[in-house]
Amino acid sequence: MVMDFESLTNEYGHPMVVACGLYRDGKRVADLKLAEAKLSETGDAGFLWIGLHEPCEDILQHIQREFGLHHLAIEDAHRAHQRPKIDVYDDAIFVVVRTAQLQGAEIVYGETHIFVGKGYVITVRHGASSSYAEVRQRCEREPRMLAHGEDYVLYALLDFVADHYFPVIDQIVEEVNEIEGHIVAHSFTTPEIDRIYELRRELTTFRRRVTPMLELCNRLERYDLPMIDREIHPYYRDVYDHVTQVNESIDSLRESLLAAYEAAVMISSSSQNEVTKKLAGWAAILAIPTAIAGIYGMNFEDMPELKWAYGYFVVLGGMVAICGYLYYRFRKAGWI
Amino acid sequence: MVMDFESLTNEYGHPMVVACGLYRDGKRVADLKLAEAKLSETGDAGFLWIGLHEPCEDILQHIQREFGLHHLAIEDAHRAHQRPKIDVYDDAIFVVVRTAQLQGAEIVYGETHIFVGKGYVITVRHGASSSYAEVRQRCEREPRMLAHGEDYVLYALLDFVADHYFPVIDQIVEEVNEIEGHIVAHSFTTPEIDRIYELRRELTTFRRRVTPMLELCNRLERYDLPMIDREIHPYYRDVYDHVTQVNESIDSLRESLLAAYEAAVMISSSSQNEVTKKLAGWAAILAIPTAIAGIYGMNFEDMPELKWAYGYFVVLGGMVAICGYLYYRFRKAGWI
Amino acid sequence: MVMDFESLTNEYGHPMVVACGLYRDGKRVADLKLAEAKLSETGDAGFLWIGLHEPCEDILQHIQREFGLHHLAIEDAHRAHQRPKIDVYDDAIFVVVRTAQLQGAEIVYGETHIFVGKGYVITVRHGASSSYAEVRQRCEREPRMLAHGEDYVLYALLDFVADHYFPVIDQIVEEVNEIEGHIVAHSFTTPEIDRIYELRRELTTFRRRVTPMLELCNRLERYDLPMIDREIHPYYRDVYDHVTQVNESIDSLRESLLAAYEAAVMISSSSQNEVTKKLAGWAAILAIPTAIAGIYGMNFEDMPELKWAYGYFVVLGGMVAICGYLYYRFRKAGWI
Amino acid sequence: MVMDFESLTNEYGHPMVVACGLYRDGKRVADLKLAEAKLSETGDAGFLWIGLHEPCEDILQHIQREFGLHHLAIEDAHRAHQRPKIDVYDDAIFVVVRTAQLQGAEIVYGETHIFVGKGYVITVRHGASSSYAEVRQRCEREPRMLAHGEDYVLYALLDFVADHYFPVIDQIVEEVNEIEGHIVAHSFTTPEIDRIYELRRELTTFRRRVTPMLELCNRLERYDLPMIDREIHPYYRDVYDHVTQVNESIDSLRESLLAAYEAAVMISSSSQNEVTKKLAGWAAILAIPTAIAGIYGMNFEDMPELKWAYGYFVVLGGMVAICGYLYYRFRKAGWI
Amino acid sequence: MVMDFESLTNEYGHPMVVACGLYRDGKRVADLKLAEAKLSETGDAGFLWIGLHEPCEDILQHIQREFGLHHLAIEDAHRAHQRPKIDVYDDAIFVVVRTAQLQGAEIVYGETHIFVGKGYVITVRHGASSSYAEVRQRCEREPRMLAHGEDYVLYALLDFVADHYFPVIDQIVEEVNEIEGHIVAHSFTTPEIDRIYELRRELTTFRRRVTPMLELCNRLERYDLPMIDREIHPYYRDVYDHVTQVNESIDSLRESLLAAYEAAVMISSSSQNEVTKKLAGWAAILAIPTAIAGIYGMNFEDMPELKWAYGYFVVLGGMVAICGYLYYRFRKAGWI
Ligand SMILES: [Mg+2]
Ligand SMILES: [Mg+2]
Ligand SMILES: [Mg+2]
Ligand SMILES: [Mg+2]
Ligand SMILES: [Mg+2]
Ligand SMILES: [Mg+2]
Ligand SMILES: [Mg+2]
Ligand SMILES: [Mg+2]
Ligand SMILES: [Mg+2]
Ligand SMILES: [Mg+2]
Ligand SMILES: [Mg+2]
Ligand SMILES: [Mg+2]
Ligand SMILES: [Mg+2]
Ligand SMILES: [Mg+2]
Ligand SMILES: [Mg+2]
Ligand SMILES: [Mg+2]
Ligand SMILES: [Mg+2]
Ligand SMILES: [Mg+2]
Ligand SMILES: [Mg+2]
Ligand SMILES: [Mg+2]
Ligand SMILES: [Mg+2]
Ligand SMILES: [Mg+2]
Ligand SMILES: [Mg+2]
Ligand SMILES: [Mg+2]
Ligand SMILES: [Mg+2]
Ligand SMILES: [Mg+2]
Ligand SMILES: [Mg+2]
Ligand SMILES: [Mg+2]
Ligand SMILES: [Mg+2]
Ligand SMILES: [Mg+2]
Ligand SMILES: [Mg+2]
Repeated sequence: MVMDFESLTNEYGHPMVVACGLYRDGKRVADLKLAEAKLSETGDAGFLWIGLHEPCEDILQHIQREFGLHHLAIEDAHRAHQRPKIDVYDDAIFVVVRTAQLQGAEIVYGETHIFVGKGYVITVRHGASSSYAEVRQRCEREPRMLAHGEDYVLYALLDFVADHYFPVIDQIVEEVNEIEGHIVAHSFTTPEIDRIYELRRELTTFRRRVTPMLELCNRLERYDLPMIDREIHPYYRDVYDHVTQVNESIDSLRESLLAAYEAAVMISSSSQNEVTKKLAGWAAILAIPTAIAGIYGMNFEDMPELKWAYGYFVVLGGMVAICGYLYYRFRKAGWI
Repeated sequence: MVMDFESLTNEYGHPMVVACGLYRDGKRVADLKLAEAKLSETGDAGFLWIGLHEPCEDILQHIQREFGLHHLAIEDAHRAHQRPKIDVYDDAIFVVVRTAQLQGAEIVYGETHIFVGKGYVITVRHGASSSYAEVRQRCEREPRMLAHGEDYVLYALLDFVADHYFPVIDQIVEEVNEIEGHIVAHSFTTPEIDRIYELRRELTTFRRRVTPMLELCNRLERYDLPMIDREIHPYYRDVYDHVTQVNESIDSLRESLLAAYEAAVMISSSSQNEVTKKLAGWAAILAIPTAIAGIYGMNFEDMPELKWAYGYFVVLGGMVAICGYLYYRFRKAGWI
Repeated sequence: MVMDFESLTNEYGHPMVVACGLYRDGKRVADLKLAEAKLSETGDAGFLWIGLHEPCEDILQHIQREFGLHHLAIEDAHRAHQRPKIDVYDDAIFVVVRTAQLQGAEIVYGETHIFVGKGYVITVRHGASSSYAEVRQRCEREPRMLAHGEDYVLYALLDFVADHYFPVIDQIVEEVNEIEGHIVAHSFTTPEIDRIYELRRELTTFRRRVTPMLELCNRLERYDLPMIDREIHPYYRDVYDHVTQVNESIDSLRESLLAAYEAAVMISSSSQNEVTKKLAGWAAILAIPTAIAGIYGMNFEDMPELKWAYGYFVVLGGMVAICGYLYYRFRKAGWI
Repeated sequence: MVMDFESLTNEYGHPMVVACGLYRDGKRVADLKLAEAKLSETGDAGFLWIGLHEPCEDILQHIQREFGLHHLAIEDAHRAHQRPKIDVYDDAIFVVVRTAQLQGAEIVYGETHIFVGKGYVITVRHGASSSYAEVRQRCEREPRMLAHGEDYVLYALLDFVADHYFPVIDQIVEEVNEIEGHIVAHSFTTPEIDRIYELRRELTTFRRRVTPMLELCNRLERYDLPMIDREIHPYYRDVYDHVTQVNESIDSLRESLLAAYEAAVMISSSSQNEVTKKLAGWAAILAIPTAIAGIYGMNFEDMPELKWAYGYFVVLGGMVAICGYLYYRFRKAGWI
Repeated sequence: MVMDFESLTNEYGHPMVVACGLYRDGKRVADLKLAEAKLSETGDAGFLWIGLHEPCEDILQHIQREFGLHHLAIEDAHRAHQRPKIDVYDDAIFVVVRTAQLQGAEIVYGETHIFVGKGYVITVRHGASSSYAEVRQRCEREPRMLAHGEDYVLYALLDFVADHYFPVIDQIVEEVNEIEGHIVAHSFTTPEIDRIYELRRELTTFRRRVTPMLELCNRLERYDLPMIDREIHPYYRDVYDHVTQVNESIDSLRESLLAAYEAAVMISSSSQNEVTKKLAGWAAILAIPTAIAGIYGMNFEDMPELKWAYGYFVVLGGMVAICGYLYYRFRKAGWI
């Protein structure tokens, strides 16, 4: 009895089997039911490209049996939250990538597992990653390239994942530029300092997911791996270049944010001190008339100044003179 | 005379010899007395799996003689507090791992030494590490895998150790998330800052024990070591992946804590300055009526204002006006 | 129908085709129309040197077809904003460099892409990079060197780019020296601290563009790449030396600026504290006569001192004595 | 004429020649005069083990001639203050180690130079390093091991040196633990902060002397060096393990001290700010009655409140009310 | 026509040609005119050792022609300000070293370029480097070593340069020790903090000039370079050791200065806060009698206390009691 995998839906209510096409000479020659897709029928130059979305245990067991996948790889594909990596089994490779994209202003992360072997490419999507229907269409529009087979499909998938990193970076760059502008202008506010803290946390997470992609692409370009033809190497290098750019942007942004954070804290603390200093300056000026007035407010019977004509005005004048002088001095010294 | 090692107990009151089984073709075929377990009787495909718990000198000397173990390895197994490592002796390997688990909210560390050679796997537990009875049961439930022999048992042990790191990490992640939430909300308290300090210390210790596991697993996967078949390499790589994840989580947590610590200190110092500034602002405002009142409290005989009708109210009004103006200015400048 | 590429202009209003010369034995033997420049006619020892400035899609497609360039390289050449790198395709290399030069006091960055293969050197300029007409003239003045062919031209281009980094560095060095002088003299101002922040940002950007040049030059010197003769290796090493010098200067300047920044912040915060301390000292001194005067301003009926002859002068003298003593003590302690 | 080197004493008043034994088959077969110890008489399996303590130029020249030592090594042995290192000369090796031990609470450092070649092991001690008499005794108690010859003696010396690092570490660990306890309890004092500074300096020095030992032991284990048999490799690895442990402890202690230092400074600065804030709070509260009292101390002729019955008590009550309210507010806000 | 190079003087008024000797079998056999020194006449075992001091273009062109030097090396020799490096040309090497020495208390830097090839060693001095006459004399005193030829001369030059680094380090060590002593004793002054800043800058410069020497010496020892015999390798390793020591001293000093700087800033900021706190404490104490006296200075008609016998003394006593109590409390809390 053949199971009807196509009718199964995952927790998002989407079908678990997204696509299952047979390709030959760069063209899709058939759309199959997953249960009927046999490795034995792909022929020498053909391959199956199967797309799964949070598949159930049954489907994974089916493809493991049908395509002879290593059970450690299947285990990984079942449990998401792997690091990006490439595992090589005798004649097959297993690739894990982490996807990132914007949903409004928020970064959402997904995960895709890719099995590549003679005659098949299987993608297993987890979480928020976009559908690879677009990759499939792009590939089918370039049959000459797609004729390279399984390794070209793997490239197309990685390229698609890497391309989606850029809008995320661009948005953060914009925010950081704005923040930096405010810092140079000394016009930032407390919530902006908090925002720097949050952006640093976001970048730390993003970086942890992108950095291992570098090693992954590097291995695909440098080493002779099963299924990967040398002619496709420049393509993997191209993805490597993109991921390197993303990685450097992240490092550069982290550095900028650290510098911005330090500068903001310094400026903010410095301006608080400035105010305290100013207030202390005024308090010192006001302490002068208070002290003098206190003296002439004493009740001694014999205080000759009190009886002077214009004594009051002389003292008042004295106070103004001293305060004025202090004001002039403090001002000149930049204290108030 | 054959010693009865089974009757010996360690300082915890537990038997020193936990288990001593003879395995063949993935199945336990006999439970032996330690003193009767002979390497000569395991046959070509069989092996002994011996579990010891803080064994005495006598037992260690017995196994050294019986299995031809290197005396430097035995010395290490006797003295705990080794770094995780793998030592290769001509035809045998000696592995040290550090275990970690939660006991309530506290992390407790243990240490296990593993001797692997043709025909035997011997584990020597020290301190708080869990019993490996569970590993034994798991292995016996998968006879097809266990049939691979000594190297598979070593994998199963390492996998078990690595799996126990995750709950420790998970608990710390939870605490750090809570702390970060409070920082973003500016609602943390002084004991929370102290807690960050303690968590940083805990992570430093944890990291020191986990990091060398990376090299250990890497060597098991990459190099041709005695006893380790190539078919088991993917399993060691899987453990390596897990340890890498733990290691990255630790690094990431350390980074987060450092950033949280700095942010907390900044916010806390900034809010103290804020208060001091506010108080200084109020003191400056109050210094105005004090000074003015002092002046009209002077006892000069000739102070015309004192005799004015409503002089008192004019001055009072003046004080209120000046203070009100200052209040308005300070408020607008965000000083008070 | 042959297109008239020479009539096309880019967004700057400059011709897209800057030059297209045929060189043989170190001499320019012909100036060709781009559409007529054929690889088949360069002969064994000749090569075409084509200079393009923000060319359109048509031109890029033409040279891709004519010179068999890899379409990934063409893609890069079309989209600027690549990292400096060297990509090797079977028998050709593709080089990306980032240029930097001063425009007044500002650093402006450009980008040049260079295709080198048997029989051709093609430069594609983007943004603010200077024209390479000067390189062409220099090369033509040394026909003996230019006779080395394509690899020498690549060297001449890289050397030109590297040489232009130095004036940028020199200007920053001058600024940093001036800043450091002010810090040692404690005579800096707040805008100077801001300037440090901006210089640090500029250096971070500059560094990100120069550092990858190191690997690029290193590969040209160390590895046997297509088209690159061993006799030219010392020349690439020379460029590598220059880039290393630039890179070290950047690192050194960054370090200096970090130290200067920290010092400036420290000095500035310390001098603010100093002032606050001084003002607090004076306030404390003035609080003495205020308190004493307050006491003798009380209205008790029976205050014997008030009736003493010279009571006023004794108290006044006491105030002066106490204040004088405090002044002496505070002064000696360096508090005011 | 044969010199009587045995009668020479160094600046400590100790003999320069500490020991000169001939060993064969793991046993000491003769004690020789240095001047009579000839390489030619050691035979194939025998070797001389010579111990020197700050020897004079004459002795060094004698052994250089007799054992054909390289004059650069002799130069090093004459001038102390070398980094730990291993120099390989054609058929001999020269090893420099730095010793450390406790003298009371202080760490004292010494230096030992070791020449190892076919037929001889010569140790040259400088400064405070312990005598190697104990090593000699240990070796002689294990003739089966000592029979391995020169390489085993070198191992025994290095092991002895490494073992002496541990008590130094243990003492610092104890101090650091105590300091950390005080920090968690917020009960440290200013001299404790100074102590952290001093401990950091001590660890920096210790680290500089221990770290190069890692490379030294690693080379002895990994490479085929003259005189070093493969059977002794595990022993060198064991020393390497010990030095690694020491090194990691130093790093961990440095990290702990840095964190403790930062925490202590933060806590201490924060508690100073706390006090200043409290005092400012009280001053602000006291400024209220001062200002009000000042107002009613004015001498205006017409101040109606002054004539009210109970005016005084109403004002007094008002002061208490305002101050009480402020006290309540400040207290609730945690300001005082 | 042969030029008379010997009569030329450089900008210091010194001859440009310092020496030009022909050496054979470790002995100087002739002093030649530069114009007459021919490579063809050195014979198989002889070599020319030429010393130049800021030579003019003519001299450099002469030696380039005569000794077949690479024009890139000559270009470097003409323009000073190279990084220390070693460039290998087919059968010759070009070495750049940076010299450092004390001139009074100041470090002055120089630069020396060395050409070494079959039959010649040419040194080109720039700036403040000492004359190599001393090296020449030392070499000539050891003809057995000098007989090794060109490579030994190169060693002697490098050794001389490295030896001159030590007095520079020693002086800085002395200064740093003094500073550290003052920090431990809390007895440093503001100019001392400035001095730390300057020393850090000096060390940064020194380090940038010494560090590349490590790679230079390492290459001379490790690789088979033209002209460099294996017997001389241990000598280069010796220089390498010295440079390593200098380098580690610089790193250690930088670390010490950083720690000293941080400690000094902390102590100084902490002691300022301490003073501010003390002054605030005294101000708070004085605010008490001021407020109380203010109250009894009010002019209410009906203030019963004013009429009490001894009311004044009771209030005075109360003031003293409150102030005394506060003094006691503040003192006990360590606030004043
Ligand atoms: Mg991170
Ligand atoms: Mg960065
Ligand atoms: Mg960057
Ligand atoms: Mg960057
Ligand atoms: Mg930075
Ligand atoms: Mg920074
Ligand atoms: Mg650590
Ligand atoms: Mg991470
Ligand atoms: Mg991280
Ligand atoms: Mg991390
Ligand atoms: Mg940390
Ligand atoms: Mg960070
Ligand atoms: Mg920081
Ligand atoms: Mg950067
Ligand atoms: Mg630097
Ligand atoms: Mg530098
Ligand atoms: Mg530098
Ligand atoms: Mg520095
Ligand atoms: Mg810093
Ligand atoms: Mg340190
Ligand atoms: Mg550690
Ligand atoms: Mg550490
Ligand atoms: Mg550590
Ligand atoms: Mg440190
Ligand atoms: Mg830290
Ligand atoms: Mg050091
Ligand atoms: Mg250091
Ligand atoms: Mg150091
Ligand atoms: Mg430093
Ligand atoms: Mg620090
Ligand atoms: Mg810091």
